[in-house]
Amino acid sequence: MRIGLGCIPCFLRQAFEAGALVTDDQEIRERILREVLSRLTNQSFDKTPPSVGRDIHRIVKLLSGDNDPYLEIKRNSNYLAMRLMPALKELIRSSADPFETAVRLAIAGNMIDYGQGDRIGEEGLRKTVFQCLDQPVSKDSINELREEIEKASNIVYLGDNAGEVFFDRLLIEELEGYPIKFVVRGVPIINDALKEDAKMVGLDKLVRVVDNGSDVPGTILEECSQEFKGQFREADLVIAKGQGNYETLSDEQKKTFFLLKVKCSVVSEHIGYQEGDMVIVRSG
Amino acid sequence: MRIGLGCIPCFLRQAFEAGALVTDDQEIRERILREVLSRLTNQSFDKTPPSVGRDIHRIVKLLSGDNDPYLEIKRNSNYLAMRLMPALKELIRSSADPFETAVRLAIAGNMIDYGQGDRIGEEGLRKTVFQCLDQPVSKDSINELREEIEKASNIVYLGDNAGEVFFDRLLIEELEGYPIKFVVRGVPIINDALKEDAKMVGLDKLVRVVDNGSDVPGTILEECSQEFKGQFREADLVIAKGQGNYETLSDEQKKTFFLLKVKCSVVSEHIGYQEGDMVIVRSG
Repeated sequence: MRIGLGCIPCFLRQAFEAGALVTDDQEIRERILREVLSRLTNQSFDKTPPSVGRDIHRIVKLLSGDNDPYLEIKRNSNYLAMRLMPALKELIRSSADPFETAVRLAIAGNMIDYGQGDRIGEEGLRKTVFQCLDQPVSKDSINELREEIEKASNIVYLGDNAGEVFFDRLLIEELEGYPIKFVVRGVPIINDALKEDAKMVGLDKLVRVVDNGSDVPGTILEECSQEFKGQFREADLVIAKGQGNYETLSDEQKKTFFLLKVKCSVVSEHIGYQEGDMVIVRSG
Repeated sequence: MRIGLGCIPCFLRQAFEAGALVTDDQEIRERILREVLSRLTNQSFDKTPPSVGRDIHRIVKLLSGDNDPYLEIKRNSNYLAMRLMPALKELIRSSADPFETAVRLAIAGNMIDYGQGDRIGEEGLRKTVFQCLDQPVSKDSINELREEIEKASNIVYLGDNAGEVFFDRLLIEELEGYPIKFVVRGVPIINDALKEDAKMVGLDKLVRVVDNGSDVPGTILEECSQEFKGQFREADLVIAKGQGNYETLSDEQKKTFFLLKVKCSVVSEHIGYQEGDMVIVRSG
């Protein structure tokens, strides 16, 4: 999907917030904002939001010299999420339909997203997770996903954010024995999960963890490594987490289930759900 | 005070929201955003936020041909506020210190501010008003304001937004007999109050209502009419509502009480109060 006009203020907010993360130097922060303003003035709107978002964050990295501005935030998200796991595992274990509960939790974990400017503490996270469990999610979609997983012989699971990977693990544990590759970004971008995050969760002990070789907060296939492109091509089922993967893959001819929280008006309009909704959408 | 870096994403948000108010034509809305981006790229940061905000909204007006994009919103705010008045008048009448209650309500009314992107319905407004009454406001400041009003022989009361003017009237009713001029903007800008709003509240029946001749969402004296500049100069006490008036007058050598809700990080940092705080600050 193409960027919407609503993406423009959001990109500026991201540049402002990322600038504040990397330095207290007002001059550098001003230079970052001016460079982003200049870039967006002539920006083609014929790109996906993650493509332009990546360009914005490249400016932040370049002008600050900090290649991973969200490192601290990612670590913090991981620890926050980790502490919730015992309770959530128990929840899955004791639920009537563990797969459904795990799918819901995987979507709930998608609210950990600093591209959207969220800052939630442990209490906030716990509260939102339990609220998510009460939110409507299409039973039909959950069953369809279940059936497709059962039929699949090569599943690619595209992760999204640090912290969220703990919630992904809950779902992947429910899928023990299925042939899953878990995919992370290749280069630090916002708070998106990298290999080190997947390893911290121990996902590499359960499934194969690969990176896509790209610094896009989504999945633009042309920009991914040859290796990953091959893995994507060979998959007969893709599970894709988060808005960024939806924004970049929704037009792709590949059987894909997008699992996400709708977090902004631009995606809301495209996907046909309200902001805040928990969504399973199938394409391809 | 000068604009802060945090103003930049806010200006873009305002341009986006104002564009959505004036037209459904995506091309015009895109042109507005590109023009604002281009303008801000080379913007001197040595201006006050309302000065640049005015420039942004001039672009919206020029490119859309709509000279008063917030007209509908202003009317709606006026009706919302009007419906609360009987209950609030009763509250003042029955309170131990009617002046203090009226001052608190005048500040509470300042949360009606579409420059900050608020959209509150009647229930939201009612709830926030009553929350505001429980928020801490410096007793000393209230008493100081009371004393200065009693001593004053020429009070200029700078209004801020439509809707909010109803709350201003509550305070001005408590000051019956004092020599007050109520000031509105000279030209439509965001949802700021104009003469027609002051008249709708009947403020012109209580005090003299004047406009400042300017389209700034604040008070930049050099840009105001000669007549208003004279009125400002002659005043021995200024009561100034809202962030815009604070941002443009906080460095002025004039005995001024700023009454406002702190609504953004840039003002918060300058004024030394938290976002959400109800503030009475004296200068001059």
